[in-house]
Amino acid sequence: MDLRVGTGALAERLSNLIGPRASLARGVLDQHGRSESYYPAMPPDIVVFPETTQEVGAIVRLCAEAGTPIVPFGAGTSLEGNAASVAGGVCIDFARMNKVLAVHAADMDVVVQPGITRKQLNAELRTTGLFFPIDPGADASIGGMSSTRASGTMAVRYGTMKDNVLALEVVLADGRVIRTARRARKSAAGYDLTRLFVGAEGTLGVITEITLKLHPIPQAISAATCSFPTLHDAVDTAIALIQSAVPAARIELLDDVMIRGINAYSRLGYQETPTLFLEFHGSEAAVAEQAQTAEAIAIEHRGRGFAWAKAAEDRSRLWHARDNTLYAGLGLRPGARAVITDVCVPISRLADCLTQTRRDADANGFIAPIVGHVGDGNFHMLILVDPDDPNELAGAKALQARMVARAIALDGTCTGEHGIGLGKVDYLQDELGDAVAVMRAIKAALDPNGLMNPGKILADGALP
Amino acid sequence: MDLRVGTGALAERLSNLIGPRASLARGVLDQHGRSESYYPAMPPDIVVFPETTQEVGAIVRLCAEAGTPIVPFGAGTSLEGNAASVAGGVCIDFARMNKVLAVHAADMDVVVQPGITRKQLNAELRTTGLFFPIDPGADASIGGMSSTRASGTMAVRYGTMKDNVLALEVVLADGRVIRTARRARKSAAGYDLTRLFVGAEGTLGVITEITLKLHPIPQAISAATCSFPTLHDAVDTAIALIQSAVPAARIELLDDVMIRGINAYSRLGYQETPTLFLEFHGSEAAVAEQAQTAEAIAIEHRGRGFAWAKAAEDRSRLWHARDNTLYAGLGLRPGARAVITDVCVPISRLADCLTQTRRDADANGFIAPIVGHVGDGNFHMLILVDPDDPNELAGAKALQARMVARAIALDGTCTGEHGIGLGKVDYLQDELGDAVAVMRAIKAALDPNGLMNPGKILADGALP
Repeated sequence: MDLRVGTGALAERLSNLIGPRASLARGVLDQHGRSESYYPAMPPDIVVFPETTQEVGAIVRLCAEAGTPIVPFGAGTSLEGNAASVAGGVCIDFARMNKVLAVHAADMDVVVQPGITRKQLNAELRTTGLFFPIDPGADASIGGMSSTRASGTMAVRYGTMKDNVLALEVVLADGRVIRTARRARKSAAGYDLTRLFVGAEGTLGVITEITLKLHPIPQAISAATCSFPTLHDAVDTAIALIQSAVPAARIELLDDVMIRGINAYSRLGYQETPTLFLEFHGSEAAVAEQAQTAEAIAIEHRGRGFAWAKAAEDRSRLWHARDNTLYAGLGLRPGARAVITDVCVPISRLADCLTQTRRDADANGFIAPIVGHVGDGNFHMLILVDPDDPNELAGAKALQARMVARAIALDGTCTGEHGIGLGKVDYLQDELGDAVAVMRAIKAALDPNGLMNPGKILADGALP
Repeated sequence: MDLRVGTGALAERLSNLIGPRASLARGVLDQHGRSESYYPAMPPDIVVFPETTQEVGAIVRLCAEAGTPIVPFGAGTSLEGNAASVAGGVCIDFARMNKVLAVHAADMDVVVQPGITRKQLNAELRTTGLFFPIDPGADASIGGMSSTRASGTMAVRYGTMKDNVLALEVVLADGRVIRTARRARKSAAGYDLTRLFVGAEGTLGVITEITLKLHPIPQAISAATCSFPTLHDAVDTAIALIQSAVPAARIELLDDVMIRGINAYSRLGYQETPTLFLEFHGSEAAVAEQAQTAEAIAIEHRGRGFAWAKAAEDRSRLWHARDNTLYAGLGLRPGARAVITDVCVPISRLADCLTQTRRDADANGFIAPIVGHVGDGNFHMLILVDPDDPNELAGAKALQARMVARAIALDGTCTGEHGIGLGKVDYLQDELGDAVAVMRAIKAALDPNGLMNPGKILADGALP
C-alpha cells in the first residue's frame, strides 16, 4: 500500500500550516528551478518560505508523511545543480529566515539563520570590528555556503566553511531538531556532526541555524597584482610565498584568457598574461613586510609590473573585477552558457594540471577562461558553450571529465568548493571508491526514505 | 546459534597470521590495560602488533568473525580511558606501524603511520624546514591524537587535529580499507569522512594511515611569562590579545596551585599567582611587534613581571615546565592519582567558569591545580585523590560533574580535547541531547555488531 499523499493534498496541508507562504505560482516554481550554471531548469512542485525552525520541522514532517522530496534553497548561486529539484517536491526557501540571532563579540562568533547572505552578514557586523571572511565570489547565503562547504578567495588564510562553522541546528529527515555542538571554540565530544552536515548539500538534513567564527577586521590591508610570462611562474610564486610563511589573505590566479575577459568586462588594462591577485592582512608594519617579501619572491619568479592597491577604493576595484569573473568570462562569447567546473590538487601538481588543462581546452577549440585560488591548489574553468548545440555541450563535458581525471590522477579532488551536486556524482566514485559506500551507509541511516535533496552527492539517493 | 569463537581459537588464528606479534603475555596485557589517569586497569585478552594495513584488515576480519572487541592503542597517553579494554578482546598496538611514509615538502604535508609519536615525527622533519605543531603535552601517537581530536597548547594558532588531518586510511568494522580523502588542501567532494573518523576514538573504524598538514618553522619565536593578581585579569588579557588580532601561538594559563606545583617539580621561582605562558611565531619584526602589543595589553590588565625568553634553551625550560604539569600536579600530593578532566567554554564565560571551579575545589578540600589553553576557552583540572579512598574518588567525580555542568550551562562542552572515552559518556548526552541519537545511528550503520572500541563515546556501544 502506498501511503504517500499527492502533491495537491500536501499543498493543502502546507497551506494550512503557513498560509500563502506555501506557493504553487508558476513564476516562483520556475525561479527555484534555475541556477547560474548550464543545467536545464528543474523546478519544484511547491515552494515554501518558513519563518522559524518549528515551521521547517513541521514542513519536513509533512513531506516525510507524503513521501515527497525536500530541497533546501538559499541564494540560488550554487554551480553544480546542488539545489535543483530533480524529482520535484518541496523547495524550502530560506529568504524569510535571514536574521542575525546573536553577535557574541568577545567570543568572536555570530549565530545566524541560513537565509542571510555573506554580504548582508558583513553589513550587520560593521560596527563590531569583526568580519566573516569566507568569500566565494557570489553573494551566497550562509546556509548554502555551509551546505556546499564553500571556500573562495580568502580560504588560504581563513579556511573554508568547514573551519568557520562552530555549530549547526539541523532538522532531520523525520522532523526532529538537533544541535550539533555548543558554542565552545573546540570540542572533543563525540562524532563531529557539525562537519558531517557541512558539505552534505542538504542530503542528510536541513540546516536551520548556523554559529560562525568571526575574525578581527585587520588593521591594514594591502592588495597587488603581478603578471607572469607563464602559469608555471605564477604558481611557483604562490608556492614560495606559502613556504616562506607569509600569511597571504588571498592568492588568486587569472589566466590570460580570463584577463582578456575582465579587461573587456570591467574596462581594465591588465597585461594579457597569467596574473596573480594578492592581498595581505595585518598590522601596518606586518602588511608592509609581507608585501615586500611577496614582491621579492614574485620578481625572482619573473613577475613583472607589480602594482599595489592600498587605498580602499583601488582594492575594491581590483576585487570587484576578480569577483565578476563569471560574468566577464561569459562576455567572451555573447549568448554562451558556461560549464563551470572546479578541481583542487596538491599545489606541487598545480602548474602541471593547469597547463595541461589550458592546452586541452585550446586544442579542442573552446574559449575556457581559468581562475584559481592557487594558494589552495584550487582552480575553476568556465567552458563557454552554445546552449543550443548538444555536440558542444558534450564536448565541454568531455573536457571537464579529462580535467577531473587529471586532478584525481595527481592526488587531487574532483571539486575543491562547488560540491558534488548533480554534476560530479560519478567522479566522486572515481575519487574515493569504497569510501562512497560509507557515505551511502550514513545516508541510509539518517534519511532511510531518500527524501532529503535526492540525486545529489550519491546517485539517485538510493540505499546501498 | 552463537557463531563466535573463543579467545583461545582467535589467539591461534591471530598467531597463524602474525606469529609472535600476537601476544598473550601477562605483562603485555597489563601494560595495555593501564592509563595515565585514575581508571582501574582494564587489560585486553590479546595484544597484536601489526606491521601493515593488510595485517590490520585481516585482524579486524578475524575479530569480526569471532565477535571479539577491537581496541586500537597508540602511546597510551589518553586521559579518559579511551583505550581501555572494557570488554576484553584484541588490542591493536601500532608500535610497529610508526613510519613516515612520504614527506611532500612543496605541499607541506606528510603521510605517516598511526604509531609514530609527535616528537618522533618532528625529529624526522628536522631537515625540511617544516614542523607539525599540535602539542597535547604528552608525546602521544599521531593515530591516538587523530582519534581523540587532540589539540593542546598551539591550537589557538594552528588549530586542532580536526584542522590538521588532510586524509585518513581506515579499516572498517568488516575489514574493508577506505581512504577518506585525497591529498588536496581542501575538497567539497561528499561527506567529510575525514572529520567523522577524527575524534571517533576508534569506535567507527581503525585508522591505519594519516596525511597531516605541516607548517613552516617560524623564522623567529619568542616566549614570555606574566603574573596576574586574579584569574579574571589573566583571561581578560587573553581575550584582548585575540581581539587585537595578535596571532599568538600559545596562550597558556596556570593557576596559583599549578604554579606552586611546577615551582616545586621543576625548581623554578615563579610568583605563585595566576600566570600566563605566551609564545609568538613569525618573522623577526612581526614577533617583536606582537610581543610589544602583548606586553602592553598584559600591563593594562594588571600583569606584572613580564619575563621574555627568546633564546631556545630559555624557551625550552619554560615549555618543559608547562608540559610537565601532570607530573608537577601529582607532586603536590605524593602517592595521589589524578582525576584529570577538561572542559571548554566560550572565552567570554571562561573567567566565571574558572573562578567558580577553583572555589568549588577549594571549598571541598581538594588539591586541584588548573591549567588551561585559555586562548581557546579550554582548561584542565587535576583533582588529586587517594586511589585507595572510594569516598575521595566519589567526591572528585562529583566535583568534576559540577565543573562539566557549569561548562555546559555556559554554552560550553564537556571536553575540549580529551574526548568522551569512558568517563564522559553521560555528559555527552547532557551536552548534545538528541544529537547523540544521530551518533548512535551512524555507529549502528558502520559498526552494526558494536565491536569497535566498545563502551567509548556511546554507552556500551549499544545499538539505538
